[in-house]
Amino acid sequence: MSVNLYDSAYELEKAVRQSEEYKNLKQAYDEVNADDSAKGMFDNFRNIQMQLQQKQMMGEDISEEEVMQAQKSVALVQQNAKISNLMDAEQRMSMIIAEMNKIIMKPLEELYGSVE
Amino acid sequence: MSVNLYDSAYELEKAVRQSEEYKNLKQAYDEVNADDSAKGMFDNFRNIQMQLQQKQMMGEDISEEEVMQAQKSVALVQQNAKISNLMDAEQRMSMIIAEMNKIIMKPLEELYGSVE
Ligand SMILES: [Ca+2]
Ligand SMILES: [Ca+2]
Repeated sequence: MSVNLYDSAYELEKAVRQSEEYKNLKQAYDEVNADDSAKGMFDNFRNIQMQLQQKQMMGEDISEEEVMQAQKSVALVQQNAKISNLMDAEQRMSMIIAEMNKIIMKPLEELYGSVE
Repeated sequence: MSVNLYDSAYELEKAVRQSEEYKNLKQAYDEVNADDSAKGMFDNFRNIQMQLQQKQMMGEDISEEEVMQAQKSVALVQQNAKISNLMDAEQRMSMIIAEMNKIIMKPLEELYGSVE
């Protein structure tokens, strides 16, 4: 990888780290992490989500009970202000990442677009 | 998204566009594209790959005949110098993209790593 690409990538990394969106996300994470009850609830929610995603990816069936368990864990975390704050911050960060990727990948999009 | 993030993302986009790896990829694509025989072979190869990937993602079975058809199309494109050149250039570009992503995503990796 050329020096120019490395330098530009590290510049962008610095910009991500210094962005309001990243700082907000970090703060929201720290707040959940410092609260044992919120952290437990959130870890449980994440585990359930991951298990369901894995089952979907493997083409396995998801039982009615599992769907209900997932819905319950969503309802539970949404009631927790620190967790819903974190999930909002994560969503904003995801949007930023998607926007950045769209910009960076434009040269490749142009290339593939012109060939197909 | 902040001005700083936009600027840095566009700087990186420019660096991608000006990189040797991207220029090589573009040239390799243009060469395949200008050669009807190579282009036809490559399009056929890509279609077969995509169909197989889609089936895998949907958890569908892949027949022995389909596996053999895929193997034949791989063997065919590997014999074509322009196509194997393009596939090498694509692989190098993929590695660059993976390296860039690793750099840019480091702040998030640190965050998630510290929470889990
Ligand atoms: Ca604590
Ligand atoms: Ca032609």
